[in-house]
Amino acid sequence: MKTTLEIPVRSTEIDFLGHVNNTKYLDYMQWGREDWYTQAGLTFEMMLEKNIGTVIANINIDYLSACYMGEILVIKTEPAEVGNTSFKMRQDIFKKDSGQEVSKATVTVVFIDMDTEKSTPIPAELKTLLSNS
Amino acid sequence: MKTTLEIPVRSTEIDFLGHVNNTKYLDYMQWGREDWYTQAGLTFEMMLEKNIGTVIANINIDYLSACYMGEILVIKTEPAEVGNTSFKMRQDIFKKDSGQEVSKATVTVVFIDMDTEKSTPIPAELKTLLSNS
Amino acid sequence: MKTTLEIPVRSTEIDFLGHVNNTKYLDYMQWGREDWYTQAGLTFEMMLEKNIGTVIANINIDYLSACYMGEILVIKTEPAEVGNTSFKMRQDIFKKDSGQEVSKATVTVVFIDMDTEKSTPIPAELKTLLSNS
Amino acid sequence: MKTTLEIPVRSTEIDFLGHVNNTKYLDYMQWGREDWYTQAGLTFEMMLEKNIGTVIANINIDYLSACYMGEILVIKTEPAEVGNTSFKMRQDIFKKDSGQEVSKATVTVVFIDMDTEKSTPIPAELKTLLSNS
Repeated sequence: MKTTLEIPVRSTEIDFLGHVNNTKYLDYMQWGREDWYTQAGLTFEMMLEKNIGTVIANINIDYLSACYMGEILVIKTEPAEVGNTSFKMRQDIFKKDSGQEVSKATVTVVFIDMDTEKSTPIPAELKTLLSNS
Repeated sequence: MKTTLEIPVRSTEIDFLGHVNNTKYLDYMQWGREDWYTQAGLTFEMMLEKNIGTVIANINIDYLSACYMGEILVIKTEPAEVGNTSFKMRQDIFKKDSGQEVSKATVTVVFIDMDTEKSTPIPAELKTLLSNS
Repeated sequence: MKTTLEIPVRSTEIDFLGHVNNTKYLDYMQWGREDWYTQAGLTFEMMLEKNIGTVIANINIDYLSACYMGEILVIKTEPAEVGNTSFKMRQDIFKKDSGQEVSKATVTVVFIDMDTEKSTPIPAELKTLLSNS
Repeated sequence: MKTTLEIPVRSTEIDFLGHVNNTKYLDYMQWGREDWYTQAGLTFEMMLEKNIGTVIANINIDYLSACYMGEILVIKTEPAEVGNTSFKMRQDIFKKDSGQEVSKATVTVVFIDMDTEKSTPIPAELKTLLSNS
């Protein structure tokens, strides 16, 4: 399952150099992952019920081009590798108008038990979705 | 040259799961790099005069432990590899009290000409500093 | 001229208490004002050409209800009072689904000369738009 | 009880116009209030135990001068008026070096029961502190 989320660049994401600050790309990717979860039917409420959460273990991001206020960005999110308690998401960002690549990233997500904060197996229904991707 | 910057975790950096959001580690590292530049004598004003800026080409960060409101974090910043137009910074974050490792990251920084937004050689005075590290 | 901007509440806007942090309402209102300017035909580029910018002199905001992740908010923006170098915007936020009022605010905006950072008359074309509202 | 909190302006708080964005002043004030609570002995943990939280009902802020990267700001926080379930904080920000006033604000804080999200009386130990101010 591959999702795309379109977002406008907001002025509050622009830094003193006039373009989107490097830290904001991670915000965009977080929104993209949450959109993926929602479309996968894994809501935040379901995760609270199961008492699980997700933490990020690693992010490896290449910054490819600068983004400017008012541009529309497309965040593409798809699972890349699935393990027992973790999986990798591939998240690429493009400019909607030109198709120009903005960034390429791999995000390693670990499922944790909210009480112990230790890793816990990926919920079965999500694992099926991830593996069929 | 290796610098350390101490910062308190602020409530505005805590997410709905109760710990510092993954995106905020990049803010912390940006502050750490700026502190490094300042201690290296490379001020923002000097860079404006030379009409150069820095952009991030890659960040590879391992998230090792969760951080909570009020904790004091120590951001360690040191150059790792120096090229012609770019260099790598190694940035590790620790908890001040326990010494627990919070994150380990390598940040690839490219110098750019502010007009062309193309890469430009590292200023000589900075290159000396970086290479002696 | 009255504009409405719809935005989804993002996870990165939620604080440790589980709802949108008070500071984020000001981000939302800034996006609403920028949307108003854009629809009024006053682009950021035009303002740069004229060498003018806007600064906020006062914000008075009533927080009326909490907002949660995934809710769609509607930001209503309209001019309230027009002076020589400043004007007031009325900005109210509602929940799209329920119509519930989220916040009511008055924002006083001053036009400044970007070189002197002193107040400067509202551009004539904008003043007409504001006064006809 | 009057507290002062010193903070450096961080690059991530600077907007595309080159100064601290208007929304960030509210972050600064939130940090100042939390520091006040901590110095008043009212920790977040105690509030969780009592199952109470605070929400902001109103913020009225005058923006008096622009702030720039690297400046040290002093946030002064003191109670102004104490009611049954709410109180007002006066929060002024100054530049440390010049003493220049940056902003003046009144923040109305309401105590809420975390389950019902309705207003609840100010904890007795805090009310004493507030009233003696």
